[in-house]
Amino acid sequence: MSRRRKPSNSSLLNPPRLFLYHRALEDALRDGTSVVTSDDLALRVGRGVSSAQIRKDLSHLGTFGRRGQGYDVIMLVKRLARVLGLDRDWRIAIVGFGFLGHALATFLEYREEKFHIAAIFDVAKELVGTRWHGVRVSHVDDLEKVLPVLECGIGIITVPASAAQAVAQRLVRCGLGAILNFAPATLRLPERVAVRSIDLASELSILTHHLS
Amino acid sequence: MSRRRKPSNSSLLNPPRLFLYHRALEDALRDGTSVVTSDDLALRVGRGVSSAQIRKDLSHLGTFGRRGQGYDVIMLVKRLARVLGLDRDWRIAIVGFGFLGHALATFLEYREEKFHIAAIFDVAKELVGTRWHGVRVSHVDDLEKVLPVLECGIGIITVPASAAQAVAQRLVRCGLGAILNFAPATLRLPERVAVRSIDLASELSILTHHLS
Repeated sequence: MSRRRKPSNSSLLNPPRLFLYHRALEDALRDGTSVVTSDDLALRVGRGVSSAQIRKDLSHLGTFGRRGQGYDVIMLVKRLARVLGLDRDWRIAIVGFGFLGHALATFLEYREEKFHIAAIFDVAKELVGTRWHGVRVSHVDDLEKVLPVLECGIGIITVPASAAQAVAQRLVRCGLGAILNFAPATLRLPERVAVRSIDLASELSILTHHLS
Repeated sequence: MSRRRKPSNSSLLNPPRLFLYHRALEDALRDGTSVVTSDDLALRVGRGVSSAQIRKDLSHLGTFGRRGQGYDVIMLVKRLARVLGLDRDWRIAIVGFGFLGHALATFLEYREEKFHIAAIFDVAKELVGTRWHGVRVSHVDDLEKVLPVLECGIGIITVPASAAQAVAQRLVRCGLGAILNFAPATLRLPERVAVRSIDLASELSILTHHLS
């Protein structure tokens, strides 16, 4: 990006906050609510997000409530879904299909309707060639053969720490632009790739440290 | 705490960093390494943690390497395990035994040897009364009857957002001092309670936002 180019508004926005709005508005829809003011939405979002912040964030999206009348919930849900990429389905590749990989696949497949497990990789002989809900488990060695044809956008990594960086690089070379990493390792990837890391054992150790 | 009282050293330490040392040292033990210098350990830990930082953190624990000789790995693993509460087993109560709760229970029971699922609660008629690896699933309404006798230290919450705060308060009243929260809600609990929150759907939306 050249220094002169103004960053797009959406890149200035806080995706978790927009996601909170989207979630709260979907709940509002389920309640049968068709119009919300920024005050209503702030109450629903909670977490200390002010109505002024909400108005500001939404105005960056070109979405304006009418003073005293509020926002059209359906329009706003659709607008936020588009910005957040939640208006389409996402195909996910999971590398590492042990207990955690399997657990995450099950959770995503059943509970998150926008996310579909489209590719599964592992190294265990007893897994490779088996099927999980119709998806064949491939050997990690075949990643470059299998993955490019499956149009996955997101990779989930649950391999041991020592293998995580190499697997992540291979996923990126196959065109994946986003990685959710559960391996206890810091990934170094090109800046264009979005990476989120969750370290469950570390989270638990923070709790046990507190209790000790 | 009075202003004059010096905070204990261990409270100044960064538990995730200590956990990284512990994990790296356990790997070193598995390699057959019995002595590490702070430079060795920094290499193993990665993530930009310097050897000077490591020496400083470990000196706060009263653990000192000998100049030019390094640290005794076994002693250091034991010391860190004690500080982190990883030298004992932890009993966990899971509230919410849907796909995510079930997935986490399986992961913890099989992969994290220090953590044991000792209590499971749900509201679904078809689940209550069934057993999971010998642990009876109880109704959430019976939480106050069941939980106090089971000596759980940590609660995992995977209930819907709207139920999370009430469940968390009930867990705390039953004596639990640490909560790992997967419900998409911010919990307000007494300061003495340690809370860590993981919002999988929000993490995924950050990735899809980036790809959109």
